[in-house]
Parts: sequence; C-alpha cells; structure tokens
Amino acid sequence: MIKGIGTTAIGESFEGYMLIKDVIKGVTSNGKPFLTLMLRDKTGEIEAKLWDTTKEDETVCVPEQIIKLAGEINQFRGKAQLKILSFRPSQPTDDVHVSDFVEKAPIEKEELTEKLTEAIFEMQNPTLQRLVRAFIRKYQEDLLVYPAATKNHHEYVSGLAHHIVSMLAIARELHKLYPEMNKDLLYAGIILHDLGKLKELSGIVTTSYTLEGKLLGHIPMMVEEIGLMAKDLQIEGEEVTILQHLILSHHGKAEWGSPKPPLVREAEVLHLIDLMDAKLNMMNRALSKVKPGEFTERMFAMDNRSFYKPIFEEK
Amino acid sequence: MIKGIGTTAIGESFEGYMLIKDVIKGVTSNGKPFLTLMLRDKTGEIEAKLWDTTKEDETVCVPEQIIKLAGEINQFRGKAQLKILSFRPSQPTDDVHVSDFVEKAPIEKEELTEKLTEAIFEMQNPTLQRLVRAFIRKYQEDLLVYPAATKNHHEYVSGLAHHIVSMLAIARELHKLYPEMNKDLLYAGIILHDLGKLKELSGIVTTSYTLEGKLLGHIPMMVEEIGLMAKDLQIEGEEVTILQHLILSHHGKAEWGSPKPPLVREAEVLHLIDLMDAKLNMMNRALSKVKPGEFTERMFAMDNRSFYKPIFEEK
Amino acid sequence: MIKGIGTTAIGESFEGYMLIKDVIKGVTSNGKPFLTLMLRDKTGEIEAKLWDTTKEDETVCVPEQIIKLAGEINQFRGKAQLKILSFRPSQPTDDVHVSDFVEKAPIEKEELTEKLTEAIFEMQNPTLQRLVRAFIRKYQEDLLVYPAATKNHHEYVSGLAHHIVSMLAIARELHKLYPEMNKDLLYAGIILHDLGKLKELSGIVTTSYTLEGKLLGHIPMMVEEIGLMAKDLQIEGEEVTILQHLILSHHGKAEWGSPKPPLVREAEVLHLIDLMDAKLNMMNRALSKVKPGEFTERMFAMDNRSFYKPIFEEK
Amino acid sequence: MIKGIGTTAIGESFEGYMLIKDVIKGVTSNGKPFLTLMLRDKTGEIEAKLWDTTKEDETVCVPEQIIKLAGEINQFRGKAQLKILSFRPSQPTDDVHVSDFVEKAPIEKEELTEKLTEAIFEMQNPTLQRLVRAFIRKYQEDLLVYPAATKNHHEYVSGLAHHIVSMLAIARELHKLYPEMNKDLLYAGIILHDLGKLKELSGIVTTSYTLEGKLLGHIPMMVEEIGLMAKDLQIEGEEVTILQHLILSHHGKAEWGSPKPPLVREAEVLHLIDLMDAKLNMMNRALSKVKPGEFTERMFAMDNRSFYKPIFEEK
Amino acid sequence: MIKGIGTTAIGESFEGYMLIKDVIKGVTSNGKPFLTLMLRDKTGEIEAKLWDTTKEDETVCVPEQIIKLAGEINQFRGKAQLKILSFRPSQPTDDVHVSDFVEKAPIEKEELTEKLTEAIFEMQNPTLQRLVRAFIRKYQEDLLVYPAATKNHHEYVSGLAHHIVSMLAIARELHKLYPEMNKDLLYAGIILHDLGKLKELSGIVTTSYTLEGKLLGHIPMMVEEIGLMAKDLQIEGEEVTILQHLILSHHGKAEWGSPKPPLVREAEVLHLIDLMDAKLNMMNRALSKVKPGEFTERMFAMDNRSFYKPIFEEK
Amino acid sequence: MIKGIGTTAIGESFEGYMLIKDVIKGVTSNGKPFLTLMLRDKTGEIEAKLWDTTKEDETVCVPEQIIKLAGEINQFRGKAQLKILSFRPSQPTDDVHVSDFVEKAPIEKEELTEKLTEAIFEMQNPTLQRLVRAFIRKYQEDLLVYPAATKNHHEYVSGLAHHIVSMLAIARELHKLYPEMNKDLLYAGIILHDLGKLKELSGIVTTSYTLEGKLLGHIPMMVEEIGLMAKDLQIEGEEVTILQHLILSHHGKAEWGSPKPPLVREAEVLHLIDLMDAKLNMMNRALSKVKPGEFTERMFAMDNRSFYKPIFEEK
Repeated sequence: MIKGIGTTAIGESFEGYMLIKDVIKGVTSNGKPFLTLMLRDKTGEIEAKLWDTTKEDETVCVPEQIIKLAGEINQFRGKAQLKILSFRPSQPTDDVHVSDFVEKAPIEKEELTEKLTEAIFEMQNPTLQRLVRAFIRKYQEDLLVYPAATKNHHEYVSGLAHHIVSMLAIARELHKLYPEMNKDLLYAGIILHDLGKLKELSGIVTTSYTLEGKLLGHIPMMVEEIGLMAKDLQIEGEEVTILQHLILSHHGKAEWGSPKPPLVREAEVLHLIDLMDAKLNMMNRALSKVKPGEFTERMFAMDNRSFYKPIFEEK
Repeated sequence: MIKGIGTTAIGESFEGYMLIKDVIKGVTSNGKPFLTLMLRDKTGEIEAKLWDTTKEDETVCVPEQIIKLAGEINQFRGKAQLKILSFRPSQPTDDVHVSDFVEKAPIEKEELTEKLTEAIFEMQNPTLQRLVRAFIRKYQEDLLVYPAATKNHHEYVSGLAHHIVSMLAIARELHKLYPEMNKDLLYAGIILHDLGKLKELSGIVTTSYTLEGKLLGHIPMMVEEIGLMAKDLQIEGEEVTILQHLILSHHGKAEWGSPKPPLVREAEVLHLIDLMDAKLNMMNRALSKVKPGEFTERMFAMDNRSFYKPIFEEK
Repeated sequence: MIKGIGTTAIGESFEGYMLIKDVIKGVTSNGKPFLTLMLRDKTGEIEAKLWDTTKEDETVCVPEQIIKLAGEINQFRGKAQLKILSFRPSQPTDDVHVSDFVEKAPIEKEELTEKLTEAIFEMQNPTLQRLVRAFIRKYQEDLLVYPAATKNHHEYVSGLAHHIVSMLAIARELHKLYPEMNKDLLYAGIILHDLGKLKELSGIVTTSYTLEGKLLGHIPMMVEEIGLMAKDLQIEGEEVTILQHLILSHHGKAEWGSPKPPLVREAEVLHLIDLMDAKLNMMNRALSKVKPGEFTERMFAMDNRSFYKPIFEEK
Repeated sequence: MIKGIGTTAIGESFEGYMLIKDVIKGVTSNGKPFLTLMLRDKTGEIEAKLWDTTKEDETVCVPEQIIKLAGEINQFRGKAQLKILSFRPSQPTDDVHVSDFVEKAPIEKEELTEKLTEAIFEMQNPTLQRLVRAFIRKYQEDLLVYPAATKNHHEYVSGLAHHIVSMLAIARELHKLYPEMNKDLLYAGIILHDLGKLKELSGIVTTSYTLEGKLLGHIPMMVEEIGLMAKDLQIEGEEVTILQHLILSHHGKAEWGSPKPPLVREAEVLHLIDLMDAKLNMMNRALSKVKPGEFTERMFAMDNRSFYKPIFEEK
Repeated sequence: MIKGIGTTAIGESFEGYMLIKDVIKGVTSNGKPFLTLMLRDKTGEIEAKLWDTTKEDETVCVPEQIIKLAGEINQFRGKAQLKILSFRPSQPTDDVHVSDFVEKAPIEKEELTEKLTEAIFEMQNPTLQRLVRAFIRKYQEDLLVYPAATKNHHEYVSGLAHHIVSMLAIARELHKLYPEMNKDLLYAGIILHDLGKLKELSGIVTTSYTLEGKLLGHIPMMVEEIGLMAKDLQIEGEEVTILQHLILSHHGKAEWGSPKPPLVREAEVLHLIDLMDAKLNMMNRALSKVKPGEFTERMFAMDNRSFYKPIFEEK
Repeated sequence: MIKGIGTTAIGESFEGYMLIKDVIKGVTSNGKPFLTLMLRDKTGEIEAKLWDTTKEDETVCVPEQIIKLAGEINQFRGKAQLKILSFRPSQPTDDVHVSDFVEKAPIEKEELTEKLTEAIFEMQNPTLQRLVRAFIRKYQEDLLVYPAATKNHHEYVSGLAHHIVSMLAIARELHKLYPEMNKDLLYAGIILHDLGKLKELSGIVTTSYTLEGKLLGHIPMMVEEIGLMAKDLQIEGEEVTILQHLILSHHGKAEWGSPKPPLVREAEVLHLIDLMDAKLNMMNRALSKVKPGEFTERMFAMDNRSFYKPIFEEK
C-alpha cells in the first residue's frame, strides 16, 4: 500500500501519485528557472520544488494534472517541503482520477441526500416546502459536491451538504427543547442559507470566486434567487420576505456581510447554529491533528486562536 | 396673508390652518387627559398641546387631518410649543389640501422630469438605457413625489427626484473633468440607486418603513428588482451584474449597509457623489436657518456636528 | 379571582395585593411630597404614584413590603402608570407572601434538582464529578432559587437553575452529534459557569450587586472558588486548571469580561450554548407578549433589536 | 529609440540609462557582497541586483546617480527583477538629466501656472486673495514641482500643482450647482490645503519626511504659516481663523489627522473634493494598467481594494 | 457666620448671598413663566426655581449678578433643588464680590507664582528658558486666574496654574528617579502645554469657548503661538520644533486631539504626568464628598466610572 | 579582555563564549542542513548561522548550552548576522556560567531586597503588611531573579524586582504630593501586582508561558492566590477584596486583561505608575542605543512608535 504525503515525515523519501493544485514559476538568484507546486493527495497537501525546469516541464505541470513523482521531504522555514527528484504525468493506464486526490465529507452523498429529503418531509408549511423543493431540484447536482467554502470550514467535496445536514440535526434537537420555534422556517433557512455559494464559487477542486461572487457575494445573490423562484412558482406572501430575511441576516452583523441583523427569532437561531457547526468543524479537524497536551496551529477564522487538547480523557 | 408657524415668535399668538402629522395621548399628573400633536404648515413644524381633551377631540385629531386653530406660542424646555386655545377640523369649503402643508423640492415636477429625460437621452449603451427606461416607466408616478428619506436629507415631496437630478448634474461635470469614466454606467447607477426606497417607505406625507423595508432594506430589494427586470427584458451580460454592484455598494462600507464596498470606479464615484449631494442639501438647509456668526443646530447625519456661518461675505 | 396588574388595561381601575420592589421619594414642583413605587405581582410590574404622602406612608412603603391597594391605571409618557387612591400594608391574616409576587421559572425546583442530579450521574471523570458535587452541596439552597441575572435573561426565581438545566439539555444533544467533545468537561463547565453570581448578587427579590460583585465580578470570584475547593478536596491536576479556564473564558472576549478567550474546545462550546439559551430565553419571552404581525419592544441585551413575529404559522 | 524598462518583458534583456532611487547593501548567505538597487526611467521602476560588488561599485551607486547598464529581466518571488550584467555612471557627454527619469504630471508647468492664476483672478474677497497671492509668491518654485505625496496619489513631479488645479476645476462646477457656497473661501482652501507638504517632504526625486514633518506634520505646520503670513501682511479678522480651520480640518476626522472636523460648509466640501480627486487619480492610474475583464492590484490607500475594469464599453 | 449652600441639607431652609451662573426662562404647563437659575457660593452649586416671575425679575436675574435670597431646599428627581421664596439683587453696601462666590485653587496666587518662578530658575537651557519666560510675561495675569478647563478637572479659579504647579512637582521627583530625562524640556512642556486655553476659553466665571477655540482648539493655537514667539525672539533651532511637538502630542492620540502621538521621551512623560494630575484632581475631589463605604457619583471624564471609598483607614 | 558581541561591528570577526538561547534546524534550497542559533552574551544578542551541520552539531547546540566560537559578522537583510566558522561546547575548566551571559537589572539583588524591606517597614496597616510579608516569604527566591516579562520591559534577570522597586519610589513621592492616597494599599498593590508572573512564566533564561499561564493568565492566578493566602492566614475583611481588586484592575481596561476597570483611587494610581515605569524603562533603553538626531527602532509595546533623540542637551 502506498503511503500518503500527510503521513510521511521530514527527512523521509516519498513516491506516489499527486494532484497539482497550483503552480508558480520562478527564477533562482542565479537566474535558473524552477517551479513551486502545490500538491495534494487524500492525506494532505505539501509545497514542492522542481529545480532547473525545462519548457516541457512547464507544459506538463498545470493545475488539475496528476503526476507520479519521487522525491524527499525537507524542512524549509519551519514547514515541510517536497524536493521533486523525478516525475511523469499520469497515464490512462495508471487508473488514477482527480476524485482520488481530494478531501471528502465523512458522510457519503447518498446518506446526505437521504437526510436532506427526510428534513423536507418533516416540513408542514406548503409554501416553504415548495420553495425548498424547487431549489433542491434546481441545484441537486452541485449541492451534493460543492464545498461550503474555499477555506476555514467544510472546505472539502460535499462540504456544503455536510454542513447543511449537521445544522439540520442541531435544529431538530433545539426545536424539541424550544418548541416555540417555527421548525419549517428554520429548516428552510438552513437548507437555503448558503446555496448562493454554488454561484459564488467556481467549482470543486480548485475553487475560486466568480465575477458575480466578487461583485455581489452569495448573500444578495441568494436573496435575489428566492425572489425569482417565488415569482416563477407564483408564490406570494410573508413567507417569501421572511425567508429572504433569514438568508440576508444569517451572518449576524453588517460588518460580517448581513445588511440587516436577524430580526426574526428563527433568523437569530439560524445564525447561531451556523456558527456552532462551522466552529465545531474547524476545532474538531484541527484538534484531530495534534496530540493531547499540545496546542493546534492558529486558526484564522477562530480569531487566530490556537486550541489546547487536554491530557485527561473522558472515561 | 396668513403668517406661517415657522415665522411666528415665542410669546406671539397664532391663527391658521395646520396639518396633523402625529398624535400622542397623555394624562397629566392630576389624571386629566390631553393630546400632544405634531403640526405643520409649509413654513415649519411645531409641537402643540391640547389640554383637557374630550372623546370627540380624540376622534377628530388624527394624522393627515387639517385643522383650523387659534393658540399661543410658549417656550417649554427650550423649545417652542403651541398651546391650542380653540380649533375645528377643516371643511371642504375651506379649500385647503394636504399638499399645501408639506415641504416640496425647490424644483417643479415638470422640470425634474425633463432633466431626467435629458440624462437618459445622453446615454449611449443600449442595455443600460433600456433598463433605466423600464424602471422610469414602472415607477414614474412615485418617483416624482417620494422623498429621498424620512429624515436627514431631501426629506420632502419630490426629494428623491431632486436628489437624482442634482447628482446627475455633478456627474455630468465630473465626467468632463475625468473622461475616463463610463458616463452611462454612472448615470444608470445614479438614477436607480435609491429606487428601492419606493418600496421601503410607506408613502409621502407620514412616511414610515414597510415590513419588507424593515427586514430587507432598499439596497437588497433594488438589487433583486434589477435582476427581475433584466429577466423580464431578456437582458443578459456583465452590465446587469455591474449595475447591481453599483446599487449594492453605494453606501460605501459594510457597516453602512453595503455588503460589498465599491469595486468598480463608477461605483466609488457614485458613492462620493451621493455623499456630496446629501451633505450639501443638509448643510445648505441648516445654514439657511441661522444668521452669520451663528452655529446651526446639531445635525445627526453629519456626525452630530453644528456648522458655523461666517460673517464675512463673498462679494 | 383577583385580576393581575399585567392584564389590566390603561383606563381601568385595579384592586389587589402588590409587592413593593423599590421606592423613591420626590416633591412636586409645588413642593408637595410624593412617592414613586415600583410594584409587582406575578403577572407583571408597574410604576405607581402615591401623591401627598405623610411621614407614616413613608414608614410603611419600603422594599419587600406587601400592600393592598386600590387605584387606577393611566398613561404617562407612553407608559402605564398606577395612581394609588388608597392602600394599607398586608397583615398576617391576609395570608399573602413575598413568594406569591415574584416571577418563577416555568419548571419546579424539584424537577430542576432531579435534572441536575441526572446530569451529574452521567459524568464519568471522577475529578470533575467530585468538584461539581462539592459545589452543588455547598450552594444547594441558593442555587435553586437565585435568578441568573438582575435583568435581561432568566431574571426570575430559580432562573439560574433553569438556565443550567436548559444548557445541559442542549449539551447532551450536541454531544451526540459531535461525540469528539468531552461531555464531562462540558457538563462541569455548564453547572459551575455562573455560580459566582450567588456571591455577586445580593439576593432573590430585590437583587443588587455586592461590594465583591462590583469590585471583582462573578467570573474571577468563581475561578478563585474552584481553586479553594480543589485545595480543600486535595484535588490536583489539569482538570482543575481547565475547568477554571472554562469559567474564565465563558463570556468569549476580553471586552465582555473574559480575560482569556476560549482556548479549549469545550470552553468555546460552553460559550456558544450559554449564548444560545440566554438569547432564546429573551426572544421567547418578548415574543410571547406580542401578537403575530407585531414587533417586540427593543431588547437591550440583543443589541437593542426589536423582533418581528410572523403572521403565518407552522401547521 | 531606446525601449523603456516599463515595456520590457520578463525574460528579455535590457540596455539603457536609468536613475538610481535607492540602494541597499547586502551579503549573500555565502558572505559575498551585493547591491539591491531601485532604478527608474520614465516608463517605470524596477528592483535590480548587482552581484559580487566591489568597493568602487558602492561608491558609484548612490541615489540620484544616473547609470548606463545592460542586464536581463528575471522573475523573483512573482515580481520582475533586473540582473545587472554591466554598467557605468553617466557622463556629461551622454546628455541625460535627472528630470528625464521621473514621472511628471500630464499637464505642463506653464498650464498649471496659468490655471492657478486664473482661479486667483476669480476671487473677489481681498483678504483671502492677498493671503493666497502671498503664499503663491513665497512657494512659487517648489509648488510647481513638488509631488502631492510620497506615494498613493499624485506622487510625481508637479503632482501637488496638478492636484490643486483639478480640485479647482471641480470646485468651479460645484459652485455653479450650489451657489450658496463661498467660492473664494473654497478656492483659498484648495490652493493652500497641502502647501505644508513643501516643508514636510524633503524634495522631489527621492522624497522623504523632514524632522519637522515627522514631529508636527503638514497640517499644523500650515496652520502656523497662515498665522505668520497674516501677521506679516497685517491681516486680521475672521477670514484668517476660518481659512486656518479649513486647512486644519481637511482630513475630515481626528483619526485621520484633523484635530477638528469640518465645522464650516466650505471646509466639508474641501474635504470631499480632496477625496474625490485623490481617489480618481489613484483609480484611473491603476485601471490604465489593466485590461478590460481584469482587476487592478490592491491599492492600500483605497482600503486595500482591487478594482474591476468592465468589459463592455461606453459607446 | 452664614452657612453655605453645599452644607445645607434637603428639607432645610436657606438664606444668604449667591452668584447667578446661568438663567433659563420657562413656562409651566399652565403657561405661567418661571426661571431656572444655576446658583453658586463658595461651598457649592444648586439649581433653583423662581416661580411666577415678573418682567422685572427677568431683568435682574442675569449671569454674574449676585442676589440675596431666602428659600428652602427640596428634592426633585433625586437632586437637591432650591425653591426661592424671596430675593433681591446685592447692593454696594453689601460688600459682596464675584470672587467671593467662586471656587478657587487650594493654593494662593502668590505661592503659585513663586513655585512657577522657582521651576524656571531651575532650567538651564537658555533657549527653552527664554521662550518660557516670554510666555509667562505675556500671559502672567490670565495664567494666574484661569481654570484649566470648563469642567472635569481643575475647573476653578487659578486651576490652570494649580495644574501646572502640581505637574512640575511630579516632574521634579520623576527626574530624580529617571535622570536620563531632559528636565528643561519637560518643564517647558508642562508650563506651556495648556496655555492655548487662555485663548480657547472666554473667561473665568462663566467660561465658554471662543470662535477660535471652537474652530481651531487650544493645541494648534498654542503650536502657532510658539512659532510666532520664537520668530519675535529670533530663536531658531530644534528646541522650537521639539517644544511645539510636546504641545501638539500631549493628548497622546489622534482621537484625543493630538495629530501626532508623542515621539520624544519627554513628550510621552508630559502626557502621562498630565493624566496623572488630572485624574488625581478629579478622584480626590469626588471622594472628598462621600463617606467611607460609599461610591462617588459617576465621573464622565473617568470613563463614567464611580469610585469606591474603602472603610479601613491608613493608620 | 574579551570584546562583547554588542560592540563588534559588521565586517569584523568575533571570538568568544556565547550562550545559546534558541535553535532552529533548516535545510538550504540545495538540501543541506544548517542551524540558525540565537546567541547572547552580556552585551547583546545576535542571530548566527552554522552551515553544513553534522548530527553531532545538532546534539551539542541546544538551548542554555554555552559555546566558544569564532566567526565573522555579516549583514543579512539589513540586520547583523554571525557566520560561525568554528566552535566547541564550553568545559568546566572554562569557568563560564549561564549567569554570565544574561542581562541583569542595573541594581543588585541585595539592594533590591533592602528597598523592598524598607517599603514594607513603612506600611502601617497590619492586615496589608501581613499579606505582603507572607508573599515575600513564599516567593523570595524567584521574586529576586525573575524578569517582569518575556519581552518589552524589564525583560532581564531581577527585572520584576527592579520594576517593583522603581514603582515604589514613584509611589512614595506621589504620596507626598497627594497625601489623600492610602500609601499602604498602594504599596501592597505594587508589590503584589505582577507576582502571578512567577507562575505564568516558566523561568529566567529561556522564558516561556506555562499551561496555567496560557489558559488563566497572571492576573486571575494572583487574585486566586491572594484569596488562598488570606484564608491560610485567617485574614478577613475589606482589605482582601480591595487588594484583589487592585490586582484585577491594574491593566486598566477589559481589552487589556482587566475584567474590572480601577474603581478605587489607589487602583487607578497603581495602573498609572505601572504604565509610567514600564514606558520609561522601554524608552530609556531604546534611546540609549541611538545617537542624538536619530530615531529608535519601532517599539511594539509603545504602539509601534519610533522615538526621536534630540540633538540639543540639557546643560
């Protein structure tokens, strides 16, 4: 079995297939060309250097290309760096695919679909249910594969659906504890809150922002889409405005991208559940990489904090 | 000729027609009922007290009712206050109308229409021109009478159109000085930037916020409307996104209600022209009420500043 | 059955027993003495005026005294105000008690005790369990009756225990969804996080801050108490420090009173659950007082927002 | 004709005259001395490396020296870098001058002078006019060549005069649209607002801050100068104080260096026109360097934004 | 001996001479005129009401007038209020003077002069000494009587000189502990730092802001004055610039009115000593008014804090 | 006598003993291992490079090891860097000790002890004196050697005691000028305010933060310790709470780590004296390294300011 890059230590040599995520050309201070590659397999990412490159090397090494390489892992400025000694592009006979090299949600697409469907079944308000169903139909394919973000939390294949399904689970339990809440409104808000990202982000593997994403952002884009969809379905009434409000306000504050703060109870709760799931996703993944008694690396989206993993265990 | 309320001094008596803007019921510490009325005529506003009111008084005195009254102006906690001695509701034979009691833009509707039309004629980009024309057609009636806001700047009948027309004049001159700018885009942004207020605000005389206005706000509402209008007109392309961006970003900063800051030159200039015209409108009106050597009252929307009117004059 | 003050409309007369919460002496502009009383029964609070008071009135009307009164409800500056026409102090034969006049948690003390005990039984880490048990023993009596705060959320009898029990329920469900969390640590943090309030606040009915509360605050006081308790129980080890950290950081940010932000996963989650339960408590109670289609009063602790209650219902 | 540095691509060789703006000595990790030079010609700037330098090289290569060089352009860390292969200092017979190597305003000094004079002629208030004339006389020479800043906007030869002249043009048109404004005061404020920079900055080519500039800043220095000038001219009266106020407040806010915010209408307008011209100068120059469909580089003084250049054109 | 207003309790009657600081006319809700007077004697200030006033009363009761009155002290909205029963203006034969009614520094003018002179004698740098002497000569009279502010700290006759003298004492001791400091520079900065207030404030008894004070502020005004004075004395050199910097930066931050923060050691120390003396002056005076075990009233200039006076004493 | 590292210029060779403070392993871009060492002797610190290291080199070069080395000082990226040409670990016969290589307070331990003792003798309140004595006894050893911080101010051996003793001297003089202050309380606060650092920091030479330090911080840790100590000494009463308040609030603001701001006069003064001494320590040391007419390096803890050293001298 081939070892992964994430489990190879500094000082060891490495051999295997890797996916190119990004490429930057450079010249050394002596004027020699080289490439800096960002490579990944399922176990992690690494920066790699290919020295003394030829024109042909530059033609081969492009984003989303898979290469087979041999090299050794050094430390450069405190970080691991792979020095490529030899490589070739992958061939059809290698039977390796882009999907083999990207991180995925810990839950399969089928299960995510099932849980989404289940939640929609629970909904009883016909207007909200129709709107949600229409969006699920429209975006079914992308919704099941897109990440929830380019970085920070749920930034992996099916990350968006994973985020939605986790939030629905929290919402279901919270609704039992606080039955005053309108579960249908909360469910609809959760399912739709980040769908605008399907148009804000460019794709799954090497995700960037679309022009619309940069100039408008996923929140106003989704508010508009709900308006258009309601018009298409000939739905009118307060539900539409309030659902748009949930999307608009789910970042909680103007500074964070919501021109209106939550002004409906379920909007406030949507914001809190979103925070809760995103933060647990970030903390759990960072903590899984360190040993008890250690601190995680600093997490930008957690106010740049570094978390401690206690030594004592729950027994 | 009947003297106006704005030109009657403290200590004097007043007689004339006034429009009721707002009514609050109260009881004195001795348990006697009274009404606090906010009254206005074309020359200004005043708080009035009607003591020892009857049930009938309460039925007559409602917002948008015109009354004929006699009273005297006292000072209460540093502000002028009208004590109503006698009054009666206006009658058809009085030939007085709500429109006689509200402040209006210093330019007539006809001239505003003409200047708007002129600007649209100057536009050469067919996509932007079609979109602008379609909105002018849709909102023609309201656009010519709505205020630009409930308070602060251009808060009078036709205030919105007055604001747009002034901004267009600045834009025309700026474009001559900086011809790199896209005039069509700037004009389209100026004409549409605040049209969302026609749905955010409830009306002209006693203006308040609609539910949609409170939960979504005029900026996301207008972004959505442009999307819907473009779809109706079967317009596609970058112009639509960029025009939506101009609307979305025209408050300049997330904290001020724009989820994206201006990222297109004309968006930045739209924001600056909007500031320039709004601030000049506020300052000019406040300064027109004080004498040289005095300071104006504090203006909330100008960071609570009070402006000084110099004594020396431009000759 | 005697009607409550919270259900008597402006303009009606009222007769019944009420508890005095606060008393301020004043003189009218004519130099006549009067009392402003803050009164409450189980249905609500009201400001009351007792005009032309005698020395004897002032001796009788003191905080925590119950009086029987007759009066009428007027409106003064937009708020209901009770004008007392006659009153007498309650007598033993009236069989009325302070506890009859204060708001209580919607769950009985017995049930709260049971739920607390249940949670402690679930805990498996002996160190954390011993510490928690010791505190429950020490503060058993106060813990079951104190409010969680003087205002904003859970500001009623048994409010603190109610808050703890609700948070434990959220934690239990969250732990099922995110089993990586250390449940024992989270439970211990929830049960102890606000116990410092038992020394920060002066009591149950007319709650104010103690000198220690004003100069140190409940957070540092509780951190110290955990240290003292651990020493008494001869407990050492990381659990104590980390539990102190959970208490110290549970307000989330230095500006909000936590000198250290959460740096342990369960500390972050404790902070989020605390927010969630406090906010739902505030929103639910405010929304229960308005009708669909209306906005609640502004809530200071919710960033001064006013929440909308939608008209459509979950069916 | 000799090609410029700004139009030579990475990978090409370059030969020509360049001006040295800055020099930093260094040693390689092997202990060999080298020089990092910042070079410029009229078409742009580039960082250059001179490897294995001799003592003599260090004597020759000093700021404001012109050299003739041959080299090749590589890429280093994503930026172009010139590797110098050979060079010699320029000689009198080369007939090259410092002024040939620096960026200049797009308008000639003669035209700038004319436009300034024209504006002063328009002024009618004798006090303000005398003050302005006196300053123009005093600083005539420097005023026509200084940049408006060391970076960000109008940071080129005659940049300050160019900025003033553009602002005067905006002011002239604004005054037509808002004739309430005092044009003389506004003109005087515009002409003098940044003259303090002539003493705050050290010179034209390799501009840095003087000690006075660092410890006092151009705003208080100019306020003082107006006071001294008025005394010399035996001018007294409100005009002097108000003109000082315009200078003092033209950055708009205390945080931005104005101890008083604008408290006179023309002071507010001066601040807005300053912003408008500075921002258009920055945006226009950045956009001129990118193609339609691209974003500019991030601009620090525009809140670190990167602007988009639309594809569709004004036709 | 006549009792002072500051030592007369609520409920007691009062008779004596008082100085009118401020007068506001009002009408009661029944339309009767009355005056609200702010009165003071050496022991304190009180708000007073004169009911049912005549035209003559209004003529007599003007700021800086001394009246002899009889009245009684009531409580109104939690504050003491004097109800005037009878009064007459003071007459020459009463032999009472404005200076008898205003608070003064606890140190006599003679002693303040002596201490100032002493400090100047200690100075050894002739340039700084000459500048300081010139200012002392110019402002000698006002400097010894002006307050340091209109409110907050040292807001009494000779307050400015008292503040300077206290700061000099701290500086003398600090210089012994940290002899690296330049004592002359520090002394010069202390003596001049607030002299701009002599032109910013209108006078001693009923102090307000001058136009120059409002539009420029005491800091830029004093920086300018030092420049003018240096020119008059034909002094040049770094001392002048650095002394101007000390004045300019003594508020510590741009937000607090210093366009440059302290960039010279003695500038930083001047800022800290200014804070230290101002805060001790405020705290000591507030604490002198409460008993051990009590909190002072909230102090706006101390971040609205209320200070506790401990019960235990230093023995 | 051996020259120190702090007095050897760039370009010179250096030979002598140095202490290793920190070591980082690296590889060159060619894959060769090297060590970056942070070295110090009494005269200063320098970064050093040891190229082409062996396994043995890595074993020898560890923190707190003393080595004898020969090398030369180059400039790398604008900073001095030592290139090690040869080295060996120190031997017992070299008679060199860690204490020879670290910076120390300019006052000897004996004198610091004496001054501390003297201050305690001056105290008259028996409760405060007993508490202070108990802490001095408990921490005597560490207190005399610990630094006051890991960087910024008093970051040298005996730095904490030096800081305390300087603050006591300021307090003694301030108390003479403002005798209203409680000197005993102020002394107790000064002596104890930073003692929590003895448990927050790991040691003297290569100081880092303990887990308790990271999760709780020295302020809450010391508040707790005072509580424990008072309990041990069976001391009760307001002194304990107020002393805890002084410690808790001595950073002045919540954002700076004090959950309560100073609410007792002596707490405010403690905060100001702490600032005063820390800032003078930082400024004096930075200014001692530059020549008149120069600016110091930027100081992070002084808001990143760079201070100017004037040319003129106090004579």
